[in-house]
Amino acid sequence: MSITENIFAEFKEHSVAEFFKKNQQMLGFSGKTRSLTTIVHEYITNSLDACEEAGILPEIKVVIKEVDRESGRYLVIVEDNGPGIPEKHIGKALGQMLAGTKFHRYAQQRGQQGIGASGCTMYAQITTGKPIKVESRYDNKKINCEIAIDLKSNAPKVMNLVKAEGNFGHGLKVEAEVADVKYDMSSFGVYEYVRRTAIANPHLHIELVDPLNQKFVFPRSSEHIPPKPITVKPHPLGITTNDLIDFAHREKECIRISSFLQERFARVSPSKIDELKQLLPDVDFNKKPSELTWSEAEKIVKAIHDPKIKWIAPATDSLRPIGKEHIEKSLANILAPQYLVVVERPPKIYKGGIPFMVEVGLAYGGGAGKKNATENGSQSEIIRYANRAPLLFDNAGCAITEAAKSIDWKRYGLKNFEEEPLTIFVNISSVYVPYTSAGKQAISGEEEIFQEIKNAMMEAARDLQRYIAGLNREKERGARKKAILRYVSQLSKDLADLAGKEKPEEIEKKLIQLIETKYSTQIEEQEDEEAPAEEEVKEEEIEE
Amino acid sequence: MSITENIFAEFKEHSVAEFFKKNQQMLGFSGKTRSLTTIVHEYITNSLDACEEAGILPEIKVVIKEVDRESGRYLVIVEDNGPGIPEKHIGKALGQMLAGTKFHRYAQQRGQQGIGASGCTMYAQITTGKPIKVESRYDNKKINCEIAIDLKSNAPKVMNLVKAEGNFGHGLKVEAEVADVKYDMSSFGVYEYVRRTAIANPHLHIELVDPLNQKFVFPRSSEHIPPKPITVKPHPLGITTNDLIDFAHREKECIRISSFLQERFARVSPSKIDELKQLLPDVDFNKKPSELTWSEAEKIVKAIHDPKIKWIAPATDSLRPIGKEHIEKSLANILAPQYLVVVERPPKIYKGGIPFMVEVGLAYGGGAGKKNATENGSQSEIIRYANRAPLLFDNAGCAITEAAKSIDWKRYGLKNFEEEPLTIFVNISSVYVPYTSAGKQAISGEEEIFQEIKNAMMEAARDLQRYIAGLNREKERGARKKAILRYVSQLSKDLADLAGKEKPEEIEKKLIQLIETKYSTQIEEQEDEEAPAEEEVKEEEIEE
Repeated sequence: MSITENIFAEFKEHSVAEFFKKNQQMLGFSGKTRSLTTIVHEYITNSLDACEEAGILPEIKVVIKEVDRESGRYLVIVEDNGPGIPEKHIGKALGQMLAGTKFHRYAQQRGQQGIGASGCTMYAQITTGKPIKVESRYDNKKINCEIAIDLKSNAPKVMNLVKAEGNFGHGLKVEAEVADVKYDMSSFGVYEYVRRTAIANPHLHIELVDPLNQKFVFPRSSEHIPPKPITVKPHPLGITTNDLIDFAHREKECIRISSFLQERFARVSPSKIDELKQLLPDVDFNKKPSELTWSEAEKIVKAIHDPKIKWIAPATDSLRPIGKEHIEKSLANILAPQYLVVVERPPKIYKGGIPFMVEVGLAYGGGAGKKNATENGSQSEIIRYANRAPLLFDNAGCAITEAAKSIDWKRYGLKNFEEEPLTIFVNISSVYVPYTSAGKQAISGEEEIFQEIKNAMMEAARDLQRYIAGLNREKERGARKKAILRYVSQLSKDLADLAGKEKPEEIEKKLIQLIETKYSTQIEEQEDEEAPAEEEVKEEEIEE
Repeated sequence: MSITENIFAEFKEHSVAEFFKKNQQMLGFSGKTRSLTTIVHEYITNSLDACEEAGILPEIKVVIKEVDRESGRYLVIVEDNGPGIPEKHIGKALGQMLAGTKFHRYAQQRGQQGIGASGCTMYAQITTGKPIKVESRYDNKKINCEIAIDLKSNAPKVMNLVKAEGNFGHGLKVEAEVADVKYDMSSFGVYEYVRRTAIANPHLHIELVDPLNQKFVFPRSSEHIPPKPITVKPHPLGITTNDLIDFAHREKECIRISSFLQERFARVSPSKIDELKQLLPDVDFNKKPSELTWSEAEKIVKAIHDPKIKWIAPATDSLRPIGKEHIEKSLANILAPQYLVVVERPPKIYKGGIPFMVEVGLAYGGGAGKKNATENGSQSEIIRYANRAPLLFDNAGCAITEAAKSIDWKRYGLKNFEEEPLTIFVNISSVYVPYTSAGKQAISGEEEIFQEIKNAMMEAARDLQRYIAGLNREKERGARKKAILRYVSQLSKDLADLAGKEKPEEIEKKLIQLIETKYSTQIEEQEDEEAPAEEEVKEEEIEE
């Protein structure tokens, strides 16, 4: 055997499950605290998605039991009242990587890849050797089983299946025994994850039982079930050449490129096809989509971006924001702040064709700000969400954090941003949220998204500024009054002496009236001066 | 169909290639500059690994051609003098994800997952629709072909294959046309990647031709071919229960658990087996490895860590450090600093059983420090490597950066660490380098590794301190001499007058001698005072 042949003698193929076993950190399994949060995140996310799709008002119970502290062994139990998973699919849903319902779907949902829950099964398996336990109730059936993954083949193993018939309601309960994890009250832990999930999902009733058997209940503040996510057609301005080829070569119904474009993409009318044809006389729009070549697709994408063609903006009805009033209720309910402002802005578009929407809430005073703040005062916190799912990690690289840092908070009356009793809530809704990395924990800094987050924060901050200015005025007014009135009594007596009058009380009364009037006028004048500098703010917006 | 069935009607499985197409950032394809660097990195890494395995002194040529600036379309050509890839394997090696020779191998190599080069093929395909072009020369054969991936099935497509026989030497040339990338001279760009690769691989001759057709040549500074990486047996202290089960159930030769443990792991002697047996009377060490249960494996792993059993530390001959003299040559060659110190420390162990080794170089003055420093002075830089491959990204979360930041550089005479003309070179060698994230760009902060990096840096810094102290003394000495000597002439005259002598020149001569002697003595005394505070440094080491 030659050297070259020798080197390649060991050539082998590996399963995706083996790959993720070696690269657990890609799935969020890095660090003990984060690993536990990842598991809870995956199960809660699946439960919420399933409830929303089935139109059920969600109820979730999370139980974390300590099995062995030394090896970081815990039992994680997550139970929901969702639609359950049918027997036929349960193995693949929880015991096979890259199998799922949402991979190619173009709709706003939390999960997407069909890896999450199976990743948890893998993690249980490789840290404790135990399969997960599942109970699924649906359609007058109840199934109990254990599920593992055959890592070599990425095939699900369903074991000890027990079936029953009868009215068991509906829901799913998963139980995973994992090791090398840790339960703690840090801002990366399970408690914080559950709390933040409750804030962004006012229709959710969620309970957490911690390893000390303490029960935390976050009741719903709204009975409104969010509308089902809808699958939308992509807008032409948002697609790449490769997307177009992909769609075209997967096409099974339309027999012409022209009808395919109209059928599969949003806002493509017959007149738009005519405009494209005019720009591209060489491209045959009558041939089969499967015959579309790369260079033709490239030309079509280029023509789509030609300024001669005016596109109607994409519909934004695919977006499922939380809603201003729901966020208000929820923040009031959970943080009980002294002041609260929520800003809901109309949907925007990024990369030309992908709709997104930003919701921002500022909660000030009361229970707002970081929970475990230092003794000598408050600490501000930014709670970040993408499609209502909390983002706890990779804070530094996130567009939300960067937008907050780019704002001159002093201008809005917050003298020391880091040390204010302030919670900044930001939720970004989109069918396609651009994450910076595999962990899906930070939003990438697309210009339109960064700017929109910043604008929304500034809009909310202008409102908060008025409240803080009022607080400050109140304080100052009190302090000045006190200072001036301290001398009034003496001054009155002196004035009475000076004027030769005998009733200093009357002079004092008039003096006080005079001071208070004068003082109020001054304040009003000051108020005008202190009004938010709208012009400047706009300038700042343009600068960026 | 019930709601539940309806939700799962779309259940589908997806290929790992489709997954990575949707999650390109996991493979390093995020951002235009980084995407290009990733491609160059994958090809160079493969070339170096292949040359090392074949015992060839590597020569690599990288050519980047601009095809279309607007769409960021470039041609990347990487050519090496390695062993080539046989026809039989070329499709899988460059056109299939998770296929490769190194996945389960326990040896110190740059590549591991069998994804890198196939990831580049995918990226070319989805950004330009073009397959990569390959020329492979080996064993008196030359093959030319084009390679793409069938993304739906993750199967390689080899096209337009042309074969020739004759003496063509050996080597591999790959040509990928990609878009959505950018060539720049930033610290994240291809030039910097190539420069840093040259620094850590003194036996490599590498050339880069940039889009302006400028040629940069980094000639080798050493003819020494690094020894072939060797595959080592894992040390018992480094394995998890799951590893043990995995190995046992894959075992095909050994028929007993006892012989399997001795055969497959390092430092397991018959007497160690006896000790294990004594600790675990319930475990049957005579049964087949395939019958090992999780709970038995768990017990064995626990017993391995029992303080009663003393293990010989793992062999460290699997480590392939660069070597002190090679690093010195290379840094001198490429940075031409005023002062250079390289510290080579003996191998250490982390997580109980995984050997690793840290090499640190400090280059000061001359061409050291950041290339594109600000006008008003120098900027220090940290150049990070894992197994000689440069780590350009995720600088913030890396143990190397954190170790550098944890050092009080003032103590070593560097007044403003950020603004010194300083290059800190760090290379970590290990069969298993613990990365923080998928991108393999940052070393995770394992305690032993962090501490070892810090100690190595401090050791080098103590040496550098002497040089800097010398520089400072030199400066001070000059300044003082000047100041004192300014008055010597006048003083001599005055003394001559006072003493009634007539030759002030003689007095001046004696005076100068006196001052210089006195002055030198003072300096020597100072030197003693300023000597590196070894005690303190050790204390600091212990504190951590």
